[in-house]
Amino acid sequence: MINRLALIGLGLIGGSLSLALKERGLVGEVVGYSRQLQTRLRARELGLIDRPVDSAAEAVRGADVVFIATPVQAMASVFAEIGPELDPGALITDGGSVKGNVVAAAKLSLSPAQWGQFVPGHPIAGTERSGPDAAFATLFVDHRVILTPISENAPEMVTRAVDLWQSVGAIVEQMDVQHHDHVLAATSHLPHLAAFGLVSALSRLEERYEVFRYAAGGFRDFSRIASSDPQMWRDICVANRDELLPMLDHYLVELHRLRQLIEASDSAGVEKLFADAKAVRDALYRPATSQS
Amino acid sequence: MINRLALIGLGLIGGSLSLALKERGLVGEVVGYSRQLQTRLRARELGLIDRPVDSAAEAVRGADVVFIATPVQAMASVFAEIGPELDPGALITDGGSVKGNVVAAAKLSLSPAQWGQFVPGHPIAGTERSGPDAAFATLFVDHRVILTPISENAPEMVTRAVDLWQSVGAIVEQMDVQHHDHVLAATSHLPHLAAFGLVSALSRLEERYEVFRYAAGGFRDFSRIASSDPQMWRDICVANRDELLPMLDHYLVELHRLRQLIEASDSAGVEKLFADAKAVRDALYRPATSQS
Repeated sequence: MINRLALIGLGLIGGSLSLALKERGLVGEVVGYSRQLQTRLRARELGLIDRPVDSAAEAVRGADVVFIATPVQAMASVFAEIGPELDPGALITDGGSVKGNVVAAAKLSLSPAQWGQFVPGHPIAGTERSGPDAAFATLFVDHRVILTPISENAPEMVTRAVDLWQSVGAIVEQMDVQHHDHVLAATSHLPHLAAFGLVSALSRLEERYEVFRYAAGGFRDFSRIASSDPQMWRDICVANRDELLPMLDHYLVELHRLRQLIEASDSAGVEKLFADAKAVRDALYRPATSQS
Repeated sequence: MINRLALIGLGLIGGSLSLALKERGLVGEVVGYSRQLQTRLRARELGLIDRPVDSAAEAVRGADVVFIATPVQAMASVFAEIGPELDPGALITDGGSVKGNVVAAAKLSLSPAQWGQFVPGHPIAGTERSGPDAAFATLFVDHRVILTPISENAPEMVTRAVDLWQSVGAIVEQMDVQHHDHVLAATSHLPHLAAFGLVSALSRLEERYEVFRYAAGGFRDFSRIASSDPQMWRDICVANRDELLPMLDHYLVELHRLRQLIEASDSAGVEKLFADAKAVRDALYRPATSQS
């Protein structure tokens, strides 16, 4: 049971965690801060928070759990702002999609005594929609949440973070900060780059209006993630640059390999590459394929 | 009303056209041929065809409409086989995703007197599933079908092809053969390459099992088209090589542009590219977004 939750960042992730806790009666009061006044008011209107406040510092005062769900590049200033106001017993955790730079920011802005309170986390959940209106209480049910505890964490803080996410139905796993950033570069960040890049490339074509007119269902699915929040994804790409660029290069090598096969009209080679990819993809989503 | 439809290729596209016509009572008999005996028997079992036959030549005998729905690279041999048996009044059309090489194959294998009977077509419909079991009667409803008439076509043949597709609920449009192949390279063929290539690239990672374990909903949507039929897509990529490779190069340039922006930590540049792509994508699917 959380007495007072401080929510910093009132979008899909923050709002959904709050709704999930409220629906289960697991939180007393939710105090919320977002940079935009409009967002704060909307979040209260939607019942995501009980009380909007005017600063991150004010939000964390007296809170036993602090959840930071802003775009990752904004977290450095959040840590700096909340440091002096944090309750020494408060659990601090976040929902950032990149962990390395968030941990670095936390260590830069919090006092060493506070490092142990910050248990970095990343809920692998989301849609291409964003903002407070996108939040819903079941977002995390049966979704993975990766925690990347740091060596300074008191075991009790890690346990509280695990309990927090399990209490809203998530499957909690733990891994190393750097390993997280590597795996997510492959699984999430690179696909977003690929989709944003493809839509962007097509939109540069002179005949773009006609091209998009003939886009079919495959393109709609493929490009859905190119409707994601540009600011959030800008932050993720820049924050995880060191893992993302080698992964992008790996993709470029693969596209060049495909290019060569097609240029040589190597039907057998093209088919093998496609068939191998299909086998991997089908194995991954076997349970879902029949419904799709 | 079609008296006898010859269906050559008994997969998703051919089977769905047949079901759609049958359900509306628009066809007398459907005679079907597929290379695999098993597919022919399954197609009859599913009611996609009334009578399986042992060759394409036998299928077209006495048919007033011939629909070729095999992978595009198989069409050359189909045209060669059916040429001698075609009824001079029969409409011949196809469902191939590439039109240039199909028209070339038709002109090579049919007699000049028969060229006028062949109205090339491409239904922009499909799922990542394939084969006779994937067929369903409403596949084409409200989907675009592009016809690419050739100069030799008698206007009456074009009208019959238009009527055929409109009768099963499709929105029929006409364009030039080469223009079709250019537009579809952008809209459909390149996205498939991008998705097959991405899944393939990730599957080459040593840590692939772990990577795929953390794949979320965005990746599932993005990679859905990498579950498409490898043989069909091999054929499309090789058949449309001349339009596809420049389009792939255009994509590679865009990915390199993104790479440079990220490498330079040019947040504003990355955000602009993402925001522009999102705006294009959102405008394209505005009606569907609220449901997704």
